[in-house]
Amino acid sequence: MPPGTLMHIGTRRLKNTVLHEINYSPGHLTESYPLKPGDLLQDGAGNDGNTWINVSGLHDVDFLQSIGEQFNIHKLVLEDVVNTDQRPKMEDHGHFLFFTLKMFSWDEAGQAMAWEQLSIILGEGFIITFQEAQGDVFEPVRDRLRQAKGRIRKMGPDYLCYALLDAIVDQFFLIQEKVSDSLDGIEEMVFDHPGKEAATAIHEMKRMLLNIRRAAWPMRELISHFEKSESPLLDKGTRLYVRDVYDHSIQIIDNVEVSREITAGLMDMYLSAISNRTNEVMKVLTIVATLFIPLTFIVGIYGMNFEYMPELSWPWAYPVILGIMFFILIGMILYFRKRKWL
Amino acid sequence: MPPGTLMHIGTRRLKNTVLHEINYSPGHLTESYPLKPGDLLQDGAGNDGNTWINVSGLHDVDFLQSIGEQFNIHKLVLEDVVNTDQRPKMEDHGHFLFFTLKMFSWDEAGQAMAWEQLSIILGEGFIITFQEAQGDVFEPVRDRLRQAKGRIRKMGPDYLCYALLDAIVDQFFLIQEKVSDSLDGIEEMVFDHPGKEAATAIHEMKRMLLNIRRAAWPMRELISHFEKSESPLLDKGTRLYVRDVYDHSIQIIDNVEVSREITAGLMDMYLSAISNRTNEVMKVLTIVATLFIPLTFIVGIYGMNFEYMPELSWPWAYPVILGIMFFILIGMILYFRKRKWL
Amino acid sequence: MPPGTLMHIGTRRLKNTVLHEINYSPGHLTESYPLKPGDLLQDGAGNDGNTWINVSGLHDVDFLQSIGEQFNIHKLVLEDVVNTDQRPKMEDHGHFLFFTLKMFSWDEAGQAMAWEQLSIILGEGFIITFQEAQGDVFEPVRDRLRQAKGRIRKMGPDYLCYALLDAIVDQFFLIQEKVSDSLDGIEEMVFDHPGKEAATAIHEMKRMLLNIRRAAWPMRELISHFEKSESPLLDKGTRLYVRDVYDHSIQIIDNVEVSREITAGLMDMYLSAISNRTNEVMKVLTIVATLFIPLTFIVGIYGMNFEYMPELSWPWAYPVILGIMFFILIGMILYFRKRKWL
Amino acid sequence: MPPGTLMHIGTRRLKNTVLHEINYSPGHLTESYPLKPGDLLQDGAGNDGNTWINVSGLHDVDFLQSIGEQFNIHKLVLEDVVNTDQRPKMEDHGHFLFFTLKMFSWDEAGQAMAWEQLSIILGEGFIITFQEAQGDVFEPVRDRLRQAKGRIRKMGPDYLCYALLDAIVDQFFLIQEKVSDSLDGIEEMVFDHPGKEAATAIHEMKRMLLNIRRAAWPMRELISHFEKSESPLLDKGTRLYVRDVYDHSIQIIDNVEVSREITAGLMDMYLSAISNRTNEVMKVLTIVATLFIPLTFIVGIYGMNFEYMPELSWPWAYPVILGIMFFILIGMILYFRKRKWL
Amino acid sequence: MPPGTLMHIGTRRLKNTVLHEINYSPGHLTESYPLKPGDLLQDGAGNDGNTWINVSGLHDVDFLQSIGEQFNIHKLVLEDVVNTDQRPKMEDHGHFLFFTLKMFSWDEAGQAMAWEQLSIILGEGFIITFQEAQGDVFEPVRDRLRQAKGRIRKMGPDYLCYALLDAIVDQFFLIQEKVSDSLDGIEEMVFDHPGKEAATAIHEMKRMLLNIRRAAWPMRELISHFEKSESPLLDKGTRLYVRDVYDHSIQIIDNVEVSREITAGLMDMYLSAISNRTNEVMKVLTIVATLFIPLTFIVGIYGMNFEYMPELSWPWAYPVILGIMFFILIGMILYFRKRKWL
Repeated sequence: MPPGTLMHIGTRRLKNTVLHEINYSPGHLTESYPLKPGDLLQDGAGNDGNTWINVSGLHDVDFLQSIGEQFNIHKLVLEDVVNTDQRPKMEDHGHFLFFTLKMFSWDEAGQAMAWEQLSIILGEGFIITFQEAQGDVFEPVRDRLRQAKGRIRKMGPDYLCYALLDAIVDQFFLIQEKVSDSLDGIEEMVFDHPGKEAATAIHEMKRMLLNIRRAAWPMRELISHFEKSESPLLDKGTRLYVRDVYDHSIQIIDNVEVSREITAGLMDMYLSAISNRTNEVMKVLTIVATLFIPLTFIVGIYGMNFEYMPELSWPWAYPVILGIMFFILIGMILYFRKRKWL
Repeated sequence: MPPGTLMHIGTRRLKNTVLHEINYSPGHLTESYPLKPGDLLQDGAGNDGNTWINVSGLHDVDFLQSIGEQFNIHKLVLEDVVNTDQRPKMEDHGHFLFFTLKMFSWDEAGQAMAWEQLSIILGEGFIITFQEAQGDVFEPVRDRLRQAKGRIRKMGPDYLCYALLDAIVDQFFLIQEKVSDSLDGIEEMVFDHPGKEAATAIHEMKRMLLNIRRAAWPMRELISHFEKSESPLLDKGTRLYVRDVYDHSIQIIDNVEVSREITAGLMDMYLSAISNRTNEVMKVLTIVATLFIPLTFIVGIYGMNFEYMPELSWPWAYPVILGIMFFILIGMILYFRKRKWL
Repeated sequence: MPPGTLMHIGTRRLKNTVLHEINYSPGHLTESYPLKPGDLLQDGAGNDGNTWINVSGLHDVDFLQSIGEQFNIHKLVLEDVVNTDQRPKMEDHGHFLFFTLKMFSWDEAGQAMAWEQLSIILGEGFIITFQEAQGDVFEPVRDRLRQAKGRIRKMGPDYLCYALLDAIVDQFFLIQEKVSDSLDGIEEMVFDHPGKEAATAIHEMKRMLLNIRRAAWPMRELISHFEKSESPLLDKGTRLYVRDVYDHSIQIIDNVEVSREITAGLMDMYLSAISNRTNEVMKVLTIVATLFIPLTFIVGIYGMNFEYMPELSWPWAYPVILGIMFFILIGMILYFRKRKWL
Repeated sequence: MPPGTLMHIGTRRLKNTVLHEINYSPGHLTESYPLKPGDLLQDGAGNDGNTWINVSGLHDVDFLQSIGEQFNIHKLVLEDVVNTDQRPKMEDHGHFLFFTLKMFSWDEAGQAMAWEQLSIILGEGFIITFQEAQGDVFEPVRDRLRQAKGRIRKMGPDYLCYALLDAIVDQFFLIQEKVSDSLDGIEEMVFDHPGKEAATAIHEMKRMLLNIRRAAWPMRELISHFEKSESPLLDKGTRLYVRDVYDHSIQIIDNVEVSREITAGLMDMYLSAISNRTNEVMKVLTIVATLFIPLTFIVGIYGMNFEYMPELSWPWAYPVILGIMFFILIGMILYFRKRKWL
Repeated sequence: MPPGTLMHIGTRRLKNTVLHEINYSPGHLTESYPLKPGDLLQDGAGNDGNTWINVSGLHDVDFLQSIGEQFNIHKLVLEDVVNTDQRPKMEDHGHFLFFTLKMFSWDEAGQAMAWEQLSIILGEGFIITFQEAQGDVFEPVRDRLRQAKGRIRKMGPDYLCYALLDAIVDQFFLIQEKVSDSLDGIEEMVFDHPGKEAATAIHEMKRMLLNIRRAAWPMRELISHFEKSESPLLDKGTRLYVRDVYDHSIQIIDNVEVSREITAGLMDMYLSAISNRTNEVMKVLTIVATLFIPLTFIVGIYGMNFEYMPELSWPWAYPVILGIMFFILIGMILYFRKRKWL
């Protein structure tokens, strides 16, 4: 297909595209939800105040195209919005900034990490967010808008954009707490009963960390890009906040790398634990075999049926042999003690 | 041989060199195929519109030389075209840009990756592509040209060049999906029946990823080079598209590195699985040997032929010995239970 | 929560916030300790001389806010102060410099490393330090202030700030000595009795070094930042001292990396030691089994009850068989000698 | 010794120093070989045309000193020429450029890699090459000079210098083909009969690749240095050729790194193959021991000599016992089948 | 302690501080040795010619302080001199350059590497060197001074400084030759009799290389710093020599890294050798056990004492059973041959 062709790549997670529009200024806030694609106010962006349009569902190509036309968005940008395998990045298109990144969340039910692609278009007086599914990590931001908490209503869409990025970054910290708990659990498993499940858990942790890392590194770049951007869309007062979220993104990467090192260390521990156990099993076998195989040979000798075996008819032969075998046994046990096997 | 000597390096894959010429402008398109080297229109490049000459087969040195003369191409460039071990790169020769890179494709029949070297010469109003064999990944681009889909006919050969690069990069994503499927298969193998085939599969995957990586890193450089090029042959309007394909090339590298890490992790899993199995086999052996070797020693004692063994004539000796052995057995089983071997 | 919300993250280590104020100039020094949050002199910063306010305990949000207002400190900075998971960094806010880093110390009782977050605000004529708990590594600095040792009283708060950083960095060297001792102990353990405890010790050492490293790398950046800072708050005369502490911070990183390499080497040694021991255990088993199993077979033959076994009635059969078995034994021992197993 | 003292470091490979002088211009070529040190034409460098003096043998210090004086070469340069452990580098001394690098070649007889140090002094109208032994990889270059093939006679000594570098770089490709063949052989060995020779071959390959890598990385730097040099001794027309050889040097490094990764992968494969085999051997042992040790115990019971063992006199006892043992055998085999050991 | 406090850190290696003063100019040289701290000529630095004062022993704090005052040396510099754990570095203090680095030497008697800290202060017309112990690697430099060999007397103290650095760097090459010999020895050990000593030798080699590396990397920086220094204390004529010693320092690092890779490779070889041997031991055990355990079972059958065992009274039973067992033995040996175990 020619470049700029819109086709949603990835699983369709929603039946219908749902919109959520918030128009706010320091003094007022109007919220429209749920909104169908057709209902989007034609004059939305021309209003007083700032508008945040959130689009859930990326398969309705016609709607995306009409949004693209209304807000003058390049087709390649829309292509990136619907291609949910996109690498996180920021692009400055002059009259708008485009962000695409991964939004992680922790699925308490399945005890697993979930993620979807989030794209943000930040323009003069408006912000549009695109997500694959409904439900996001932005509810606290919406509450701050509704309740006019902090400075969020007084500032422009660049500050809102910062708040969204901050909410996404905060989720990474949550995920990392879960990772940390998991690592403690795996550590216990490795030390107490190293087995196949421990290996599997380590392997899954590795893949999980690969996924987090893959999202986190370009996210850091993206935020750094945003902070250093000379776009007039980013207010000087907001830059300090972006710097703060940038620090957090570095910390996330630090944490991921540390977790990766710990995981690698656990794999080493696991392998050494298995070697240790094999060694111990071997020792038991060797001790038992070494103790009894020679003795069995001795009793075998006196089980032979030769006619001329003088010892057989000696009266004290039996107790003497038993005594000899007993001393051999004691001798071997002492030898094993010396070797620290017992 | 002196530098600039043309000699095809690599397997000759085609009997005859085959040409394919497309001349297009927004309003018209003429296509000549198959064309023999001798038939190439002498006035091809002087025409109105843009010309795309595709050359399949690199062994016909005379023809390459005459093309070189007609389009004023340096001998070292032609040498790079025929040397199919060339590292991907872009060179700006003023009146033309030269690209050489690897074109990957997936051979469905053999379930294997195939690649050949592709060289592109992008000049004022013309583009020449050189490939080793017939059959390529450009059919969709030709279709867009023929059907005047999108903006491809309206723009110059730089846009066509972008479209070709994009088609090549897209193939990498296809290959990576296959790699990803393979990795899932290997993972299953490692967990379910780790054996020699699993190790072989991991080893082959490693080499495959090395090959992809080796093509992908310099390709990224090449595209970055193209995007940042100040050559007048690259139109400003096309640059944004090249930037897009550059993003894709970074993503390919990300994917390759992640696949490499997963493969390394699978090797670790495989080694730990084998250690685990050896450990289990050892345990079975140790349990059996430890249970029966001492008992065999005891029965050996009473198989001795000494004349004076008072126990032998006791009426309850046999059942008592059996009972003692039974208790020893039970004791050992309890010991193994405690050690969590059973 | 909106950014800039103050909430202490981490364990509350102190019941009440305790302040310690030192006002000094070349000629005088006044010290107030312990001071409650309410007692802080309102005119503290306006005094002649320099003021060092040390705040122990980070949970009293109201107090922190009032300090923030008095000294005109941005809310994001205060948020960083109370968020004790902060990555070490330095920020130049014009009228003050902000440092946050980890203060390590060695807990002699528990033979373990302890750390807490320390934040420093360096302004014109004052310095404020924030710590989580009481008790710090600054007592020697306070003594130098009290006794007017060296140049510390003659110079500004930037020099005091250097002295604090220097005290923190010095603690790292102390910790590294402990690490070095530990490594020697582990090495001995690995060589003399490699077992589970050795593996555990190596694993713990790895995590400890990860923690030190994680604090040390950004601390180096922070100090480098400080040294290169063009802030008028950093006097030229002090810069040379900061350069000195920067050299120390590099050395700490060098040491950490070397310790990490040694730890990795010890893990390798440990694994090889276990393999070696398994090998030795195997050898003992193999020698014993190989010596006696064939002999047991031979004596078994002559324990068979066939009626027609002519050897049984030969008079010399028994000593001859014993002799044969003796020669087999000697032969096998020679064979093992040749293989260097004995 | 003071710096600049000339003393040949390394094995003396030639009995006498042998010179080879070629003087050429587009229209003529004179060649003098073999030439003794004393015969070197005093007016060599002052001639029309360009002169290439090749010196084989580095131990004749007096001769080297007189050459140094004639061509005004700094003593430190001559010291580098005779110190054959020199790291490859290029130095611009104004009136001449100095190159020192390793010249690899493949010794077909010994199936091994050989190398010696080559130094080049490129001046105005002359080039001097120093090698340790006789015999080099430059014969094709000399033939091109003699037969006036290509442009080599028409251009200055900078082009000749390029041609020599190119010949050296080409040898690396030859070596790498041999490496590649070797790797295929080792791979086969690892898969088919992993043993000590395989390990030794991998180890030797690693060292070989270390040697190649150690020569190749600084050679790349050297060529890059040459290409970017602003010395008037390097003609603009030649620069494009140097760029070409630079591309080749990058490719060599790529190849070396890939070979190193493959070698590391083979070591992993080898270790896993050995683990696998140990596992298989263990399985055979465990199966045999587990099958027969319990049975031997049973037959041992009925070999006891108790007077009161009622079973012994039952007529069907023998076949019944045989039958029971047969069923135990079958049961165990089924158990091993289930465990996939058989 | 306040910064700038002088206290010798490290073992005191000398009872008394010993000085060695050399004053030289192209035409004369006066040498005073041994000199006590009190004897140092007060007018030393004001003399005609250049003065080299060598101080052995760092514990005499008063003397160091008086030297510091006489030559106007910052206290932090003196602190670095006496702190013998200092990381190698160069500092430009305007009127003098300060170098501190590690001086390695090979202790032939103990077959071990020794090192001490060397500090150099290079000023206008004088150079002061500080070492921990007596005995150094500078005797050849002193001889060149005494005998006016080469240009050393004609040039300034910067050239002397270069000569000292060069002498130190040369020692590294010597150490590396020893390392190389050691590595060959370890390689032999690993191949011929891999055991605990081989592992220990590898481990010690690793630590030794870590120590060399830790000294070599910052030394390279230091020399590079010196070479690029714009200090008027470094003469242009000397710079070329410093460049030469810089090349050597890079080569040292190259060598260290290669040695590290070889050492890591030897560890791999060692582990694989142990696995191999375990495998071989296992094979012997398995062969012996598999051959004789089933046969022992068979002879056990005919050792049973059942009354009704018809075979026992057959005249040919004994030879037939022996024959059967012989064929089983042959069959098993053939099986092992097929499996390539024999």
